[in-house]
Amino acid sequence: MKLPRGFLASGIRAGIRKKRPDLGLIYAPNGANAAAVFTQNRFQAAPVTLSKSALKKSGGRVKAVVVNAGCANAVTGQEGMDAAKRVRERAAEVLKCRQDEVFLASTGVIGVVLPDKKIRESIPDAFTRLAAGGVEAFSHAILTTDIGPKVAQSSFAIGGKRARIVGVAKGAGMIHPNMATMLAFVMTDAAITPAALQRAVKDAVDQSFNSISVDGDTSTNDTVLVMASGAAGNDSDADLTAFQNALNKVCRDLAWMIVRDGEGAIRVMELEVSGARSEKDARLAAHAVATSPLVKTALHGGDPNWGRILAAVGRSGARFSLKKISLTAGNITLVKNGAPAQYREKDAARVFARERVALHLNLGSGTASAVILSSDLGHDYVSVNTDYRS
Amino acid sequence: MKLPRGFLASGIRAGIRKKRPDLGLIYAPNGANAAAVFTQNRFQAAPVTLSKSALKKSGGRVKAVVVNAGCANAVTGQEGMDAAKRVRERAAEVLKCRQDEVFLASTGVIGVVLPDKKIRESIPDAFTRLAAGGVEAFSHAILTTDIGPKVAQSSFAIGGKRARIVGVAKGAGMIHPNMATMLAFVMTDAAITPAALQRAVKDAVDQSFNSISVDGDTSTNDTVLVMASGAAGNDSDADLTAFQNALNKVCRDLAWMIVRDGEGAIRVMELEVSGARSEKDARLAAHAVATSPLVKTALHGGDPNWGRILAAVGRSGARFSLKKISLTAGNITLVKNGAPAQYREKDAARVFARERVALHLNLGSGTASAVILSSDLGHDYVSVNTDYRS
Repeated sequence: MKLPRGFLASGIRAGIRKKRPDLGLIYAPNGANAAAVFTQNRFQAAPVTLSKSALKKSGGRVKAVVVNAGCANAVTGQEGMDAAKRVRERAAEVLKCRQDEVFLASTGVIGVVLPDKKIRESIPDAFTRLAAGGVEAFSHAILTTDIGPKVAQSSFAIGGKRARIVGVAKGAGMIHPNMATMLAFVMTDAAITPAALQRAVKDAVDQSFNSISVDGDTSTNDTVLVMASGAAGNDSDADLTAFQNALNKVCRDLAWMIVRDGEGAIRVMELEVSGARSEKDARLAAHAVATSPLVKTALHGGDPNWGRILAAVGRSGARFSLKKISLTAGNITLVKNGAPAQYREKDAARVFARERVALHLNLGSGTASAVILSSDLGHDYVSVNTDYRS
Repeated sequence: MKLPRGFLASGIRAGIRKKRPDLGLIYAPNGANAAAVFTQNRFQAAPVTLSKSALKKSGGRVKAVVVNAGCANAVTGQEGMDAAKRVRERAAEVLKCRQDEVFLASTGVIGVVLPDKKIRESIPDAFTRLAAGGVEAFSHAILTTDIGPKVAQSSFAIGGKRARIVGVAKGAGMIHPNMATMLAFVMTDAAITPAALQRAVKDAVDQSFNSISVDGDTSTNDTVLVMASGAAGNDSDADLTAFQNALNKVCRDLAWMIVRDGEGAIRVMELEVSGARSEKDARLAAHAVATSPLVKTALHGGDPNWGRILAAVGRSGARFSLKKISLTAGNITLVKNGAPAQYREKDAARVFARERVALHLNLGSGTASAVILSSDLGHDYVSVNTDYRS
């Protein structure tokens, strides 16, 4: 797959991870307008702090994106900050841009200072390998415990011009999606102002990445960056509806891939909560169910154990009607008006055995709703996370 | 082990579970003063609703406790309520007491109506087998996924008399302790008024069972019942300090056993959070760490991966000082003033390889504190919960 016009990318081994590519570079030779959404975790990794202020200083312009896997450079104090700054300096030097046009992102183990020397020494190599077809190499270089790369694309019309959009993401660690470091880099060749991009990315993230995690519950490094090179040549005051739809689709596709690739996951639960007194109630209930290890292990086993789902709702703090709450799986009603419904166990089991398990929980007390995606919890999750650092 | 004077117990097979004892009976021929703490889950199982109102109606008197494993009888509507009432009726008939002197508790799968016929038919057998030494049989009959029975005892002086206290509990499902059904039955031969018992049980539960779970986060069936037969013959206005201490000790011992016996657990994390702005902040931080699957899997692997601990604190919502937060494991300082400390990896690994892993997190911004016990998350947890109903 080729990148949208105005972008080049590469992915190489810098030696941070053992025998795996671990350094990704995106380069926009003529620069790109940019906007980003960052983690709300109070421990913000050094690259997050630096990128946030760089975007502000440059007025929303980015020329280079340097991403490393294997080390999150979070909770590393001044030492970590200095290491990240040295990477930024070196990238600006090699790519001949201003330091505030360099955007940094890191993912990996927390509490270890970035091995910046390895990265600095590798940047010229990453620069040499930049290519319009470099998205694949880049998508591999940013992974940690992910099983495979995550790339999504779409195309759209804007102000009479054709434009493309390509997104690359990494995720995993999906039992509490909020705790996985989630990185996404989305590029389009449309011309869009930084302010419009900022509104667009917020909207897209709310219905994609924030529906697998929950507002404000994020890791130390989570970052979603959207860049627009303007190479499509449209007027920047063109109607953005088609762009927004394409951006939403790419982000939703990436979010799905992240959940599906949750560590050891074999199924994705698509939970819709409706009938809530408020959106907060809907989210409380959705979050309690989606993060419940008992629900997630039952999902892994393909077991329609709805008692665990309702027990999670009961302790969630969400307001609901004991006499009106209902739950359906696919087209099977499991619970109706607060009591078990009549259904054949094997019909319910068939729904829970699918790759996508669609659940609909009606709280029976209002009109607010929420949607959340969640993966199952299996043995591979335990294996991956028990030995993560070794 | 013998029960305190005034109590008899038995445990038998009623056929609810396959080839396992599943019906426990406690009998106080002369009755006992009683007080209880129940789940705060909005889905309250039928036996919880009935026992709560029975205790009120009898003025805190109990003669019989009927406990079954294999079926929680929760979210079962009127049908479940009727089934529980029939069990109560039959117990009152066989044990020759009032219905409001019968205390019910159930644990097992949610959403299945109690097979009350099996229980009713088995009550005469349970009655026949009642014995002062029946605590062992009883302790086995109330288990679900627990590895083994949980019994603790202590003795104390009250008003110049010697008295004993014996507690029996069941737990498991410990990844979110709050989601496991936790039952505990504590008996003493001291004479204590129902009102004093109620204060005492609240105090004891706060520092034991509520420190493995978190306030208000409970399953559909959680119940702690304390009964006092008065057979020791003390004045009921005697000083209760020694009793309270003994009760606290028994409850703490049972709470420890429950965590240690968490499904597949091999380690217990004893996390103390201090330096918090408020108790709420301390509890928020403690809860986020204790329930984090990433922390729990690292604990399983004996990996001193403190980055995951701090990341959990960062997203917990607790207020803390980024520049003053510190973390120690045993006597090893891992994080000091918000930055990694100097320590040898193998020293830290040694602490995390123990059966009891003592962690102390100082939030650096106040004087409030909280303690929580949590188990690790290993493969056996997944195995147990994936196949729970099969």
